[in-house]
Amino acid sequence: MVTRKAYISYCNATKKRVPMGVGHSSVSLSLDPISIAAFTAKPKPKTSCFFNTHCKKSVFPTKKNSLFVGFSLKFESLKCGKVAGEMDTEKGIDVANKSILDFHGIDERLIRKMEFDALVWSSLHGLVVGDRNFQRSGQVPGVGMVHAPIALLPMSFPKSHWKQACELAPIFNELIDRVSLDGKFLQDSLSRTKKVDAFTSRLLDIHSKMLEMNKKEEIRLALHRADYMLDEKTKLLLQIELNTISSSFPGLGCLVTELHRTLLNEYGEDLGLDSKRIPSNTAVGQFSEALAKAWTEYNNPRAVALVVVQTEERNIKMLHNTHNVRTVRKTLAEIDREGQLLPDGTLLVDGQAIAVIYFRAGYAPTDYPSESEWRARLLMEQSSAIKCPSISYHLAGSKKIQQELAKPNMLERFLENKEDIVKLRKCFAGLWSLDDLDIIRKAIDKPELFVMKPQREGGGNNIYGNDVKETLLQLQKEGSEEDAAYILMQRIFPTVSPTILMRDGICHKEHAISELGIYSAYLRNNEKVIMNDQCGYLMRTKIASSNEVWEINQGSSTLQTT
Amino acid sequence: MVTRKAYISYCNATKKRVPMGVGHSSVSLSLDPISIAAFTAKPKPKTSCFFNTHCKKSVFPTKKNSLFVGFSLKFESLKCGKVAGEMDTEKGIDVANKSILDFHGIDERLIRKMEFDALVWSSLHGLVVGDRNFQRSGQVPGVGMVHAPIALLPMSFPKSHWKQACELAPIFNELIDRVSLDGKFLQDSLSRTKKVDAFTSRLLDIHSKMLEMNKKEEIRLALHRADYMLDEKTKLLLQIELNTISSSFPGLGCLVTELHRTLLNEYGEDLGLDSKRIPSNTAVGQFSEALAKAWTEYNNPRAVALVVVQTEERNIKMLHNTHNVRTVRKTLAEIDREGQLLPDGTLLVDGQAIAVIYFRAGYAPTDYPSESEWRARLLMEQSSAIKCPSISYHLAGSKKIQQELAKPNMLERFLENKEDIVKLRKCFAGLWSLDDLDIIRKAIDKPELFVMKPQREGGGNNIYGNDVKETLLQLQKEGSEEDAAYILMQRIFPTVSPTILMRDGICHKEHAISELGIYSAYLRNNEKVIMNDQCGYLMRTKIASSNEVWEINQGSSTLQTT
Repeated sequence: MVTRKAYISYCNATKKRVPMGVGHSSVSLSLDPISIAAFTAKPKPKTSCFFNTHCKKSVFPTKKNSLFVGFSLKFESLKCGKVAGEMDTEKGIDVANKSILDFHGIDERLIRKMEFDALVWSSLHGLVVGDRNFQRSGQVPGVGMVHAPIALLPMSFPKSHWKQACELAPIFNELIDRVSLDGKFLQDSLSRTKKVDAFTSRLLDIHSKMLEMNKKEEIRLALHRADYMLDEKTKLLLQIELNTISSSFPGLGCLVTELHRTLLNEYGEDLGLDSKRIPSNTAVGQFSEALAKAWTEYNNPRAVALVVVQTEERNIKMLHNTHNVRTVRKTLAEIDREGQLLPDGTLLVDGQAIAVIYFRAGYAPTDYPSESEWRARLLMEQSSAIKCPSISYHLAGSKKIQQELAKPNMLERFLENKEDIVKLRKCFAGLWSLDDLDIIRKAIDKPELFVMKPQREGGGNNIYGNDVKETLLQLQKEGSEEDAAYILMQRIFPTVSPTILMRDGICHKEHAISELGIYSAYLRNNEKVIMNDQCGYLMRTKIASSNEVWEINQGSSTLQTT
Repeated sequence: MVTRKAYISYCNATKKRVPMGVGHSSVSLSLDPISIAAFTAKPKPKTSCFFNTHCKKSVFPTKKNSLFVGFSLKFESLKCGKVAGEMDTEKGIDVANKSILDFHGIDERLIRKMEFDALVWSSLHGLVVGDRNFQRSGQVPGVGMVHAPIALLPMSFPKSHWKQACELAPIFNELIDRVSLDGKFLQDSLSRTKKVDAFTSRLLDIHSKMLEMNKKEEIRLALHRADYMLDEKTKLLLQIELNTISSSFPGLGCLVTELHRTLLNEYGEDLGLDSKRIPSNTAVGQFSEALAKAWTEYNNPRAVALVVVQTEERNIKMLHNTHNVRTVRKTLAEIDREGQLLPDGTLLVDGQAIAVIYFRAGYAPTDYPSESEWRARLLMEQSSAIKCPSISYHLAGSKKIQQELAKPNMLERFLENKEDIVKLRKCFAGLWSLDDLDIIRKAIDKPELFVMKPQREGGGNNIYGNDVKETLLQLQKEGSEEDAAYILMQRIFPTVSPTILMRDGICHKEHAISELGIYSAYLRNNEKVIMNDQCGYLMRTKIASSNEVWEINQGSSTLQTT
C-alpha cells in the first residue's frame, strides 16, 4: 500500500512536489464572520520577480458576458488548458475566451503603481497574514505580519457560469440538510471508509452515539462553501467539493473584492475594466448575520457564541460589534477542561451557557492530538447548543458522500423538485468509488484524466497524473481495503490565464488556473427555514512555474454586465 | 563648544540616553490625510513585561470633569511629578487628580483579553508600522509589519484644559498666518540663528529670494499640530511647540481613538469607563478636506496634488478616494529631476500641473543630502502651487520665533483681539534666548527647571537636567555665537500616571507622562478665510523605566462628560 507518508517521500526523492488539495490547506489564513483572524502564511517561494519587458498595450477590449476573476489553484503541472493569450489564433475556441485580458501586457509603470497601492491598501485594511518566517507570528497577533498573497487584478469569468453557481447554493444547502437527517444513509455509505480511515471512524462513532440517543438537532445552521471549476473543453461548471465545516476565507474574499474595486476605481479607465462589474461580496456580513440569527433562535439572552479555535490560530470576535452577541474563543482542549453539560442539555464552558458553536478547528485529524479533544467534540455534540456544523452536517460534506450522491437516482432519494435535481446533476463531475473495476481499468490506462482524492476533509492530499496509476496498481497488488479511503474523480482542466500575483511584496507574472468558491448560509428551526442564501464568493488561483507550486487565495471577480 | 555629536558620545560614555525631543522624531510613523503611510518603528527595547501580581479592583470611580487619555513623552528621568496612585494620600493635591484610574490594578484576565483584542484590531485596521528589525520594511510596503506601539487604554485628562487647547487652535492659526506675512520680522528674528544653523540659513535664503521677487502667497494652507503639556504644580496648560510642517500622526491618532472606543464598548462596563467620553477625532478627514478645498481654490481641474515624501517612507493617496483629487508622490530629488516652472508660475512635475504641495518631507537637514533637494524646494516655492507649508509658514513654526513671540508686547504686533492675546499668553511657558544673561545664570544654578532646545525642527535633540548646566558653561567658555542655535524653555512637569503600554506584541505596565497635540487646519484665499478649525488630537506618552526611555505615539482621550 502506498501510504501518504511514503508518497511524500517518493515526491521528495523525485523532486516532485506533493500536490496540494483544494479544500482547507495547512495554512491557517482565515478571516471569518465571528472570528476574523491572524494567520500563518507559507514560507516564501524562491521564485523571483520576472516582468516582460515589452508592453503590448494598456487598454484592452472587454467582453460583456463574462466576469473578471483573478485566482489560483493547485496542480503539479499545467500540461493541459491553454494560455488565454494564445486563444485568438486557435480554431474552434469559444469567442468568450477572447474577452480574457492579457494582464502580462499591461504597461510596466501602471503595474508598479497598482502594486504599490495594493500593498499599502492591504496593510491599512487588514489584508494581512502572519509571516511563517517570523517565529512569533503564530503565537502573538499583531507581530510579524505580511500582506496576504493576492492577485493584483480580478480575472475574467463567464457571467452565466457565475450565476449558475449562485443558483446552486440554496439547492445544495437543502440537499445537505436532507442528507444530514438520514443517519442510516450516512452510516451505510461510510461503512467501508470507516474501516480504513481512523478519523472518519471517530466521527462516525460520535454520530452513532447520537443516533442511539435519538438526538435531534431542531435548529440547524450551515455555513458552506461549494467549490467549482470551469472545464475548458466542455464549458461545464463542475463541482470540486462542498465544505460543510470551517469554510475558510470569507473575510479574505471580501477584502480582496474591496481591494480590486479600489484599484479599478483608480486605474480601471487605463485598463479598460469597470469596477462596477465586480459582483458584491457579502460573505462576512451574511455569515455573521446567520450566526446572530441562530443565537436568537436559541433564545437564551445570557448565552454566548463559542468559536472553537486551533492552538496556533488567532481570532477576533466580530459578532459582538455587529449583532450584540458575545463570543468566546476556546480550543478543543480548553472545552474539555472547562465544559460541562447540564441535565437540560445546556452546554456550559467556563460557567457560560453556549448558544452557538462555530468550528474554526476540528476538521482535521491533527486537531485531535489526544482523547481530550474527542471528549470535547462529543460533549458539544450531546448538548443543545447549535453546532455549525453538527456531526451529521460534517459527515454529509465528506467526499465519499459527494460520490454516493452522484450515483444514479440518488438525488431523487432526498429531493422532490425535478428542476433542482437536473441543476445539481449538471454540475457533478464524474465520481467513482474504487470498487468500480471498470473505472479503475480506465484510470490506470489514462491516469491524466483522473484525480484520486482521499476521503478526509482538509485537502492537500490529492493524487494526480502518473501517480494515480502507480497508486491504483499498488492498491490492487496489496488487495487490502485501503482503496475505500479514496474516491476517483474526473480531472477538470480549467483555462490557463496570464495573471499578476503578489506575494511577500514581490510581483510575479504567472499563468494561473482558477477555482470559484460560493459561500452560502442555511438556518432552520424545525420546519421554519430562516435563511437559505448564497452569501458571497472566493476565487482561488494556482500557478505553476519554475517547478514551484504555490497557492494564492484571493477572492474577487469582475462581473461584466450584460 | 559641546556639539550634538559630542553630547551623544557623552551620553553613551555615561550610559545615559540621549533625551528625545517632542517634535518630529526620527521615526517616520505617519498616517496622513492624503498620505496614509507605512512606517518604520524603532528597534524594540529590551524592557521585559512585568505585571503586578495583585489586583486591586476591576471597577474604578471616575470623575466627570476630566477626560481619559493614554500617552507618552520623553524625559531622561521622571524625578518630578507624582504617581497618580499616591495622590490621595498627599495634602494639597487637587481633587481632580483622584479621578485618574490606576490601570495597574485592572484584573489580569481582563488585561489579557483587551491586549489580545487590541492586537488583532490593530492588525485588521491598519494600525501597523514597518518593523525596523525587518530590513525590507523601509523599502517595500506590506512586508515586515508590526502593530503600532499603543497605550491599551485612554488616560484621564481634564476636560477644561482639553477645551482650552481646542479653543487656542484657530487663534494660533491666525497668528502664524499674520507672522508669515511679516518677512522682515522673520528675517530679523532669525538673523543670529542663521549664522550658526546651516539648515535655517538655507531656508532663510529661499525666504529672502521670495521677498526679493515680491512673491505673494494668495492662497495659504496650514495643517498644524500644537503640542501642550499640563504642568502638575501650576495646573497650567503650557505650549511645547507648534508644528507647521509635516505635522505627523493624524491618522494614527484617529485609529487609536477608534481602537480605544472599540475596547471601551466591549469592556467599558467592567472598567467603569464610558466610550462616549472619548472625544471624536476627525484629524484625517478634516486634513483631507482642507487639502481638497485648497485644490478647489487653485481652480485647475487638470492639476493634481503633490505629496513630497522621504525616500524611505511609504505613503498612499487617500485624497482621491474621498475628494476625487488625484495625488502623486515624489521625493525632493525626483521633483528636481522632473520639475519645471512655466512662465505663468505653474509647476509641472513629470508633465503634470501641481495645485497643492503637501510636505511629508523637507523639515529636517537629512532630507537635503545634496543641492538637488534644495533646488527642488526653491522651484516649488517659486511656483504658484499652494504649498503646505510655504517657506514663511515653515519659518514661522521655528522655536526661535516661538520664543520671540513670547516676548512682551510681541503678540500685540500681530493680533488685535485682546481676549485672544490673553488666551495665547496664558499657554506660553517661559521662553528665553541665550543672550539673556540673567536667565543663563538661573539655568546654571537650577538646570532641572529648564530645557535647552535647538532651533531646528524635528525634535529629538533637547537637553535636560545637569546637561543644561554643562552645555551652558561650555558655551560661555567658548564665547562663540553657537548659543544662537538654542533657546531656553521652562521645564514642564506633567503628572505621572500608571499606564499599560503595548509594543511588539508585549504588554508593559509603566508610569507615563503625556503630551496633547491639537491638529488644526487653516485655509484662506486673499481676504476670504475658508477654513480655520481644530481638527482632532493626538496624545503622546513617554515612559521611563529600567533606564529605558521609549516613546509611544497614541492618540486617544476619554472625555468625562459634565
